[in-house]
Amino acid sequence: MTSLNLDIIGKETEERTIKYTWKDVILYNLGIGAQPDELKFVYERNPGGVQVFPSYACILAGAGFPRFSSKPVDGARFIHGEQMIKLVKPFPSEGELKVKGVCENMFDKGKAAVIHTRMSGRTPDGEHIFDAKYVHFYIGEGGWGGDRGPKAEPLDPPEGKEPDFSLSYKTNINQAAIYRLSGDYNPLHLDPVFAKRSGRFDRPILHGLCTYGYATRSIVYGLCDGDVSRFKEFKARFTSEVYPGETLTTEGWKDNGRYIIQVKTERSTVLGNAYAVVE
Amino acid sequence: MTSLNLDIIGKETEERTIKYTWKDVILYNLGIGAQPDELKFVYERNPGGVQVFPSYACILAGAGFPRFSSKPVDGARFIHGEQMIKLVKPFPSEGELKVKGVCENMFDKGKAAVIHTRMSGRTPDGEHIFDAKYVHFYIGEGGWGGDRGPKAEPLDPPEGKEPDFSLSYKTNINQAAIYRLSGDYNPLHLDPVFAKRSGRFDRPILHGLCTYGYATRSIVYGLCDGDVSRFKEFKARFTSEVYPGETLTTEGWKDNGRYIIQVKTERSTVLGNAYAVVE
Repeated sequence: MTSLNLDIIGKETEERTIKYTWKDVILYNLGIGAQPDELKFVYERNPGGVQVFPSYACILAGAGFPRFSSKPVDGARFIHGEQMIKLVKPFPSEGELKVKGVCENMFDKGKAAVIHTRMSGRTPDGEHIFDAKYVHFYIGEGGWGGDRGPKAEPLDPPEGKEPDFSLSYKTNINQAAIYRLSGDYNPLHLDPVFAKRSGRFDRPILHGLCTYGYATRSIVYGLCDGDVSRFKEFKARFTSEVYPGETLTTEGWKDNGRYIIQVKTERSTVLGNAYAVVE
Repeated sequence: MTSLNLDIIGKETEERTIKYTWKDVILYNLGIGAQPDELKFVYERNPGGVQVFPSYACILAGAGFPRFSSKPVDGARFIHGEQMIKLVKPFPSEGELKVKGVCENMFDKGKAAVIHTRMSGRTPDGEHIFDAKYVHFYIGEGGWGGDRGPKAEPLDPPEGKEPDFSLSYKTNINQAAIYRLSGDYNPLHLDPVFAKRSGRFDRPILHGLCTYGYATRSIVYGLCDGDVSRFKEFKARFTSEVYPGETLTTEGWKDNGRYIIQVKTERSTVLGNAYAVVE
């Protein structure tokens, strides 16, 4: 028996207003590795205000989640599988956005449920800023006889072809400790006892969305010449864990008006099945 | 003619209430270099709450400054010369403190004024937590025919003697960018154009109080076994600038119930005339 609230599918959550300041933005940008010479991303006196990396959508969208289950969600079984963001306009440097969400679908894979959620953020006067789509796997919550859902189309880099861009950033050993101050306080990312108890990791891992933020930053520099207004869309699947201190290499290959994206550490591919759209 | 308000000497400022959260504390601790394995300083789920490095006094004391001058203070001429903190009890993990300050004296060195200020912090029910003393040089504001003040007693490490403790920490290239989020937004610490225009530095320098925080953290580990309740007092003079990325080595020599302290980078001594008292 699933604990999922299957009847929420397609119903929008109530709109919530999220305020943020330039200090929140700078803390987030530092959390995804922005360096002091990236002045427009870390300095509140930047003309026109500090700029916001598009993946900040993932922080603000957190407010829009519907209530998936009749029980508290068990973080140990609730796995973030995929993330997509779409930027209609760049984020204001500070202010407030109205965020709402909808569970688009819940698929029944037997041993797990697959949950698709979409959030959107608008300015107080209704201007559309972002959409964010999430895919979560909820292990142990399938088996209600529902639709298995579509098979994902594989999206791999062309074999043997050099990427059209490649950018590497070494994460700091304290990267998760800084990133979490933007609001994701899951002990998995800091507490060694908790991380070991998960049975899946030796030690605390970097937030998946911190890796996703590094990839976003790489796309902004590698494909948009540092201009966030040229960043339109980025989707990726989380394929392996990252430990703070590892180096993240983001690569992209041109592919019919978009770029196929891949992110690797020294050990493995950590974001795959990924693409970005830029102007 | 000085613009200093000489008549404020000895008059206490009005008490101000400063609130802080565990998130403020963690951000500060990370700002002075705390690492993810220093769990009790970076993790809000630490039993009893996150612990606060004693130099947090310098952040909270900022609220207690009296109005030194009839004009806005010119940061380019107002130089932080010395800092002392005294901890009566460790800081609560979060909450509020009442802070007030007093200008203890203004001395007239001719070309500059030397301003001594003392701040204190207490819990809402009156428990004394900290004192913080500042010495500032205000260049161009002497010459009113006042007392030149006492000569400082020199306090140097014993020549040729190995220190009783020595701890080195490499600062991060983004250390000032993180530290400033605790409230000191002086562009000198981030903006290369501003830093050059000062005529004193090639590029942005680390906050003196960030260096002071690193020294405090070194004293907590080197002399107090990581126990902030054993830290009682620390005074130091700022003797040279630090650039983010440099390594700070804090050393201490036993000296009649206290320790003589010195902090060096690869290039020079940056905190001198310094002592610490611990239990």
